Amino acid sequence: MRTHEAGSLRAGHAGQSVTLAGWVARRRDHGGVIFIDLRDASGVAQVVFREGEMAERAHRLRSEFCLRITGEVVRRPEGNENPEIGTGEIEVTATELEVLSESAPLPFPLDEHLEVGEEVRLRHRYLDLRRPGPARAMRMRSEISRIAREVLHGRDFVEVETPTMTRSTPEGARDFLIPARLQPGNWYALPQSPQLFKQLLMVGGLERYFQIARCYRDEDFRADRQPEFTQLDIEMSFVDQDDVIELGEEIIGQLWKRLADHEIPRPIPRMTYADAMARYGTDKPDLRFGLELTEMTEYFADTPFRVFKAPYVGAVVMPGGASQPRRQLDAWQEWAKQRGHKGLAYVLVGEDGELSGPVAKNLSEAEREGLAKAVGAAPGDCVFFAAGEPGPARGLLGAARLEIGERCGLIDHDAWAFVWIVDAPMFELVDQSDDVAVGSGRWTAVHHPFTSPNADWVDNFESDPGNALAWAYDMVCNGNEIGGGSIRIHRSDVQQRVFEILGISEEQAQDKFGFLLEAFKYGPPPHGGIAYGWDRITMLLAGADSLRDVIAFPKSGGGFDPLTGAPSPITVEQRKEAGVDAKPASQVGGESISVFPPGVVEKQG
Amino acid sequence: MRTHEAGSLRAGHAGQSVTLAGWVARRRDHGGVIFIDLRDASGVAQVVFREGEMAERAHRLRSEFCLRITGEVVRRPEGNENPEIGTGEIEVTATELEVLSESAPLPFPLDEHLEVGEEVRLRHRYLDLRRPGPARAMRMRSEISRIAREVLHGRDFVEVETPTMTRSTPEGARDFLIPARLQPGNWYALPQSPQLFKQLLMVGGLERYFQIARCYRDEDFRADRQPEFTQLDIEMSFVDQDDVIELGEEIIGQLWKRLADHEIPRPIPRMTYADAMARYGTDKPDLRFGLELTEMTEYFADTPFRVFKAPYVGAVVMPGGASQPRRQLDAWQEWAKQRGHKGLAYVLVGEDGELSGPVAKNLSEAEREGLAKAVGAAPGDCVFFAAGEPGPARGLLGAARLEIGERCGLIDHDAWAFVWIVDAPMFELVDQSDDVAVGSGRWTAVHHPFTSPNADWVDNFESDPGNALAWAYDMVCNGNEIGGGSIRIHRSDVQQRVFEILGISEEQAQDKFGFLLEAFKYGPPPHGGIAYGWDRITMLLAGADSLRDVIAFPKSGGGFDPLTGAPSPITVEQRKEAGVDAKPASQVGGESISVFPPGVVEKQG
Repeated sequence: MRTHEAGSLRAGHAGQSVTLAGWVARRRDHGGVIFIDLRDASGVAQVVFREGEMAERAHRLRSEFCLRITGEVVRRPEGNENPEIGTGEIEVTATELEVLSESAPLPFPLDEHLEVGEEVRLRHRYLDLRRPGPARAMRMRSEISRIAREVLHGRDFVEVETPTMTRSTPEGARDFLIPARLQPGNWYALPQSPQLFKQLLMVGGLERYFQIARCYRDEDFRADRQPEFTQLDIEMSFVDQDDVIELGEEIIGQLWKRLADHEIPRPIPRMTYADAMARYGTDKPDLRFGLELTEMTEYFADTPFRVFKAPYVGAVVMPGGASQPRRQLDAWQEWAKQRGHKGLAYVLVGEDGELSGPVAKNLSEAEREGLAKAVGAAPGDCVFFAAGEPGPARGLLGAARLEIGERCGLIDHDAWAFVWIVDAPMFELVDQSDDVAVGSGRWTAVHHPFTSPNADWVDNFESDPGNALAWAYDMVCNGNEIGGGSIRIHRSDVQQRVFEILGISEEQAQDKFGFLLEAFKYGPPPHGGIAYGWDRITMLLAGADSLRDVIAFPKSGGGFDPLTGAPSPITVEQRKEAGVDAKPASQVGGESISVFPPGVVEKQG
Repeated sequence: MRTHEAGSLRAGHAGQSVTLAGWVARRRDHGGVIFIDLRDASGVAQVVFREGEMAERAHRLRSEFCLRITGEVVRRPEGNENPEIGTGEIEVTATELEVLSESAPLPFPLDEHLEVGEEVRLRHRYLDLRRPGPARAMRMRSEISRIAREVLHGRDFVEVETPTMTRSTPEGARDFLIPARLQPGNWYALPQSPQLFKQLLMVGGLERYFQIARCYRDEDFRADRQPEFTQLDIEMSFVDQDDVIELGEEIIGQLWKRLADHEIPRPIPRMTYADAMARYGTDKPDLRFGLELTEMTEYFADTPFRVFKAPYVGAVVMPGGASQPRRQLDAWQEWAKQRGHKGLAYVLVGEDGELSGPVAKNLSEAEREGLAKAVGAAPGDCVFFAAGEPGPARGLLGAARLEIGERCGLIDHDAWAFVWIVDAPMFELVDQSDDVAVGSGRWTAVHHPFTSPNADWVDNFESDPGNALAWAYDMVCNGNEIGGGSIRIHRSDVQQRVFEILGISEEQAQDKFGFLLEAFKYGPPPHGGIAYGWDRITMLLAGADSLRDVIAFPKSGGGFDPLTGAPSPITVEQRKEAGVDAKPASQVGGESISVFPPGVVEKQG
């Protein structure tokens, strides 16, 4: 239907007759001569309708009419070139015009920067996608997948599609459920990840698996969550942690090199989980800036200040923060309370080195004396403190650090800072975990119950479960966890011992992990893998503000789709036919077998 | 963990020390010397445990133990080479052995040809996948996707992931449904295809879209159907039918060239729908053999035989069929009855040219005289007849033709015969259609209501709906429909006229296709597309007998997964939390809006 793409025309085409097809991006009427910017997927070209019949016919053209035009490419008159676009040296003098379809007035202008509510954009997502930013994000997403596949195919990985209608998880993270019409009363579940299937593929001898996999989590859609999301899912046999990490660096390295023009220095640094928590108060530190936490527990060992008599005291410095007005310091208290803390203790370091603020007077002379030096504060800085259990206190300081980084302009928004967080703990105490415990023991798995202890701990993790370390690794970019994985247990004796720590009896194990344990009876290879959060990686590379910006048809809050109106009521007939209300034929004693337990899946998104 | 892959070892490696990892494929004990075939994903190498300690340690090895061995590559003694495997010139003399994991006795032997029930194989699919055939099928499937993507990316197509939690279709083909916990009483549906989303992407200016998309259909799982299946889904703007066909030939051409070592002659021939029905009795003719149907309606215009006084009479010849014993001829009657027909009339042509069989005596002298010549039968052949409405009668003869092809060995099972079926009808009478009608008119859409009439019919399809032709095209390979698509309507006046023929009022159209029609108000481009059945194409290229053989974890009959036991009952808590039994808050008058009407989707599988 066209001879050329609009964005491809150059001065070298001058004199040629071309046929273009696309949309009216802009239309200007200059005293009888009508100019339009004709946009197609390749770019924009200026089309001129000169006086006379053509101009008359072009008169009815409006924004986003879809056209086919034929005309001659001519060089623009000197001085009229537009160096900002590739086609800026030429224009097309139209000799034929076909209106392929008209457009009603637009619900919002299709500009680069748009001041319209997201709900309206999503309801007309097909118009939103005509804007340069969203169109670019879709193309970049496609490129990201293409490049990752190229790396993986180059290393003989096999892409395998695993099922998305699988078995339900009665406990743990919530599954989306699907009634099975042909087995009334029984339900499928959408997978939270292909975790168990990829491990089965390793038992199946596939050795190198990947999949760009749709995953599903029925969570409360707070913040930036989508009910369906995508991850690059990888599993490998006969590998150790270094092999998985090396592959990950190659994939991520290629993506950033080719799409962000950024050469990631390799190897990407590794930081232990313990180190990350101690220095940054988080397991996903943003290393685009320094400003580490300082542990002050020792320093305040004999403090007279009751609040600092705690298992952990730490500090983070806000450069220049001493000059904050009182209401800003109050706002920090409010900020901390919103995060579930009592407040955020602080000390201001005067330009003369004198300390002030409500905490200062509670400290001993000696403590005041050495404080600025101990935390690395300069005159004019503000020092924030948190005291209590190490976990929550560090978490608060870590969040304060990020907030300080933003407010003080410490973050270079053009920088990329990658780090691997390694040596994650195997176990945490059930009462300190957010997740539902798999077993009935005091300990629960930090990653999942198939994560292997590392070489130092494989023989003795029982002796000190709280300090036992796993072969688990997360990749972090600019404070975002973009990938995470582990080496799995393949020895049944080790698996048995892990189950014991977790308080999972053999019967429970059979109930919960039956088919995977059965598979592991038949010569399972050593294996491990990783999953990368594809939406988040695309968001970072596209420079988008939200995951929704890099998803073709995203859901808005509460999982609602403003475009199609999903979810929606169903008819009585649909309900009846789907067997929603049938009693399962073979249910035994009201019990059901848990196959996908909580935390058994590698989730990114 | 290893220095080499087992299958990569060659004579050139002789003298090197290597470390391998893999599984015990076979174990032979030759008087104290133990030989094992060590298998990994790359192939098999022979490992020798010589007398002494190594042989003793190797004694416990059993089938499918997972091992790591170190040893020296040596040339096999002359005469002991095995030319059938790549590593046949060498063996590895083991000096170290580590049992990575043991294997319980296998539920079935992992041989190439297996005499075990499919249910058992699927329950232990991870073992089944260690067999050469299934492992090859998985690798080929990955290659098929890789090659298709290469072609598409090479032409600037953008891969877009469309949602799989979408809006339900109260009427028409059944959707799988998902209760929406956060909007109790409302349900998502799994998509039958990305049809509407890909058309929205064209409205969005994407121009060239593809996706290897998971699709879902809640059908009765007769024959070879899976509840979830995969299609290569494509949509393009500013194209005509020839453009879509050309791209399809490039994709399929590359696949067959690179994976079946077969150069498909191009352009692939096109046959009209009418021609295919007349000559082969089907819209997916198997052209690996001739044996066309002969229409005999004219011939029998004045027949005395009551059965042949019908709107259509046709014949197909079974070469050599006159020598079939009586019970085989009876079996043909049974065969026809199972297909819902009264029987299959036949005439036997004797070696002397005399006709016999129950029909022959009912024919006139003249009819008998010219019959063999008219249908192209030779002495010794059998002629089968069908009479009645053209559709069912041709269908029966088409099925008989295939059966004859198989029984008489007319089909070259190494051949590939591709054909495009074009010029499909726009409409069929509601009472002759298997599908649920979209509107309330006498006519229903053969493809879907957005399929464009072709240039000959766009201005006058109302004058003769039964003969109006669409720009719709199916690709057929060896009698399998492997792809199908159409050019879509983008002009609102044409769409309105099609709705009128289908008896869809404006209000119904809004109800049924609301958001797509809304999108089409804003300058929709001319567009069209196609979908290829990825499971079926993989099955053909892998030479597999069943779709299940080319799916990693398929469902068996009734949508049951023998491996995980899905679907399964859910707990009372899950049911309550999912909001299965909640009344939707915003349901109006018990009506719900149909967004995905029947037949609106391009389905392959």
